[in-house]
Amino acid sequence: MITKRTKTICIITAILVMTVGILAFIVTRAIGSENDMSKCDNFLSESLKQEISSYGPIVHTIVKAIVENDGKGTTYKELSTFIDTFGNRYAGSENLENAIDYMLNRSIIKNLENVHTEDVPIQTWIRGQESATLLQPRRQNLPMLGLGLSIGTPPEGITAEVLVVTSFDELESRKSEALGKIVLFVPEYISYGKTVIYRSKAASRAAKHGAVAALIRSITPFSIRTPHTGMQSYDANVTKIPVAALTVEDAHMLKRISDRGQKVVVNLKMEAHFGDIKTSRNTIAELRGSEKPEKIVIISGHLDSWDVGQGAMDDGGGAFISWNALVMLKALNLRPRRTIRTILWTAEEVGYVGAKQYYKDHKNETQNWNFIMESDEGTFTPYGLNYVSGNRGACILEEVVKLFAPLNATSSLRSDYVGSDITLWLMDGIPGASLLQRNENYFWFHHSPGDTMDVEDPVSLDKNTALWAATAYILADLKEDFPRN
Amino acid sequence: MITKRTKTICIITAILVMTVGILAFIVTRAIGSENDMSKCDNFLSESLKQEISSYGPIVHTIVKAIVENDGKGTTYKELSTFIDTFGNRYAGSENLENAIDYMLNRSIIKNLENVHTEDVPIQTWIRGQESATLLQPRRQNLPMLGLGLSIGTPPEGITAEVLVVTSFDELESRKSEALGKIVLFVPEYISYGKTVIYRSKAASRAAKHGAVAALIRSITPFSIRTPHTGMQSYDANVTKIPVAALTVEDAHMLKRISDRGQKVVVNLKMEAHFGDIKTSRNTIAELRGSEKPEKIVIISGHLDSWDVGQGAMDDGGGAFISWNALVMLKALNLRPRRTIRTILWTAEEVGYVGAKQYYKDHKNETQNWNFIMESDEGTFTPYGLNYVSGNRGACILEEVVKLFAPLNATSSLRSDYVGSDITLWLMDGIPGASLLQRNENYFWFHHSPGDTMDVEDPVSLDKNTALWAATAYILADLKEDFPRN
Repeated sequence: MITKRTKTICIITAILVMTVGILAFIVTRAIGSENDMSKCDNFLSESLKQEISSYGPIVHTIVKAIVENDGKGTTYKELSTFIDTFGNRYAGSENLENAIDYMLNRSIIKNLENVHTEDVPIQTWIRGQESATLLQPRRQNLPMLGLGLSIGTPPEGITAEVLVVTSFDELESRKSEALGKIVLFVPEYISYGKTVIYRSKAASRAAKHGAVAALIRSITPFSIRTPHTGMQSYDANVTKIPVAALTVEDAHMLKRISDRGQKVVVNLKMEAHFGDIKTSRNTIAELRGSEKPEKIVIISGHLDSWDVGQGAMDDGGGAFISWNALVMLKALNLRPRRTIRTILWTAEEVGYVGAKQYYKDHKNETQNWNFIMESDEGTFTPYGLNYVSGNRGACILEEVVKLFAPLNATSSLRSDYVGSDITLWLMDGIPGASLLQRNENYFWFHHSPGDTMDVEDPVSLDKNTALWAATAYILADLKEDFPRN
Repeated sequence: MITKRTKTICIITAILVMTVGILAFIVTRAIGSENDMSKCDNFLSESLKQEISSYGPIVHTIVKAIVENDGKGTTYKELSTFIDTFGNRYAGSENLENAIDYMLNRSIIKNLENVHTEDVPIQTWIRGQESATLLQPRRQNLPMLGLGLSIGTPPEGITAEVLVVTSFDELESRKSEALGKIVLFVPEYISYGKTVIYRSKAASRAAKHGAVAALIRSITPFSIRTPHTGMQSYDANVTKIPVAALTVEDAHMLKRISDRGQKVVVNLKMEAHFGDIKTSRNTIAELRGSEKPEKIVIISGHLDSWDVGQGAMDDGGGAFISWNALVMLKALNLRPRRTIRTILWTAEEVGYVGAKQYYKDHKNETQNWNFIMESDEGTFTPYGLNYVSGNRGACILEEVVKLFAPLNATSSLRSDYVGSDITLWLMDGIPGASLLQRNENYFWFHHSPGDTMDVEDPVSLDKNTALWAATAYILADLKEDFPRN
């Protein structure tokens, strides 16, 4: 029998235990918070924190305008019109130059300021016709893409037995077998960062041991039989040999066949060659600062793409959130103290050529650059900012992202690397950022025919545009310059 | 203060509350079970239930042998060797006949019984060279696949303006615009069953209103720019016009361009034509029954594939679990009372031609067919059986799947449709089953270049082989024939 008194004691006991637990939780959290906050308290004054937090209403205005009101869907609309009009925009192509003219014109129509282009000389590389054909043990066409800057083959192609290896180490241990062969690298995909070395260095490593050509498994975690291209470079002291990517599926197939002890013979034909030096252009537009126009916050993406697919994701999305963020700020009449500059880089895919030129041409003004941003890893659902900064800057950015609750994008990640074109300036100590976003599937489409408008969606583009616009506005408008340390 | 006595009371209280909860749960479950079981109690005697449950140890033996011991990985190994050796196996191709010879030989090597083929005449259809090129508003190659049995175009192709519609209804409401145009259907993908009508009937619906060709968005929920082919058929009283599938991405692009009011012009070239009547073959192997060899349980898949991709998923996997289940039962010396027959159908993709011929040739023996199974919707992770049966048969199958706990495959679903080749017999009232499996992504690869060995995995193939072998064995060995009602 349980008496009423006992029941009461039990309930009180339970309440006491819960209360102690909750108190312990709160105390632990408070200590945690204090520790986090104390770190930034050394760097940020209360008034600076208040200043940052005072941008809440402006963030709200920007988000509402872009995600809900007149701006809603405009990034997707502008981007898809552009993509459908031009398709891919390869460095050195007339198509890219037409696309740049188009953006110049759109920028003028949208009343952006200081709209202009700056010339970039480009050593062009032309893919030409290309094919890979399995000849033994049976005949099959192998969808492929030559890698950037590869040399071509003789017109009849290169026909040779294939040596399949899974790593550079395996090649080293079997180097005596490589002479006169086509070496196919089928590395396990770990991550893009870790696996892309097999794209960059396949040709040089294979040539070192006398191979006549190199092939790689496309650098992607998932495939529906689509090859992925990308840049490679030849080491200085080895013979240049042609190099191309097969689909993941076909690379796996050739490995299985080879593992069964069967001879694999492939014919590789590539017309790849260097073309003329041509002139492309970086495209610039600004919202001039009201108080310190010489001080600059940059938002950017690259307009060029590979010569396959549509370059909608890489980097149409990044270019257009950077461009439309400026358009929207202008339309909202939100003019910050400093200048916000949108740069649409050219010739990123062929070696950051546009950025390198801009770096050279603008060396004398970068002391005025406050912050530099690039979006070049997709424009999927954002959840915050990925940044490179000193400690004080980090504390400022941690305060800034708190304002992005209306976008569900209050996360931040301090990194060593946040961009492609902007890397040179980051290395010089200029702080910068890219998006934190749900880009887990980015490499499914990257540098392949699958990079199309279907990868992009209007809602994510709106959110990224708003995040980009709000970040640029706040950093360009804060009373003090963004700290470099 | 909490006294020791109070603590004891609290603990006892807690134990009592938990006990009441657990009892309530058990009682509820028991009532639920009783209700389910009472439905089948009208159909199944206690002795039949005991007989079925007595197969537990045999299921365990089969699963252990295939998933853990000697059989482990053999389905993948046999399948991948076959796929890599032959690639795709299109009805009418010499390659398919070589593949059939190979399976005949493998069946003999594996000591299967009554190994033979049965002839199937086939009206061949040849794809030939084909292409689609966007000419206006800009030039772009559009990856495509002609649809089965389509007529071809003149050698220079058909060049016409494209009318984009999202449904047959929209076409009807805009029928006056169709004359002389290429009609492109871009339906929203609902499900394969609901959307595939746009593949089957695009040509006929477009031709009715004077279109010169038809295009469709590939029938898939997800794409990385890969077109999907498949059969279509012409209605009797309309002009035959060429018809092909574009990728999802390109179909969407043409729709966007058209929605902007721009004129879309495409050139479609197809050499598609009918070829000779050729002879293919269904491949049969058996494990002859020990007591009632004339009574038959069939497990099957189709050996032919489309002429793109490798046909590893559609239907290499289905064919090989059906074949290797028989091989494994033979190796385990598990001979049931009735005969288990493996049939590897030919020419499924071009209209169930092999199955139709078998139906005609074996009309007089089907009174002896107990049960018929086909796997033709992938061989992903299985979780049970999908079946067509009368009420009594359903109750038997519900008991059978309980034995598949070692495979985590104890689910069942009673359906109207479970297969492609076996449909004719199911319609005649012969009960049958297919796999319940995690094939949510099946249509990503279906009828496309993406149907390769990368879709298959050794573990799932083992599980499916074991499930297939155990089901076939039990149904072929039960004392009584499987009931038809």
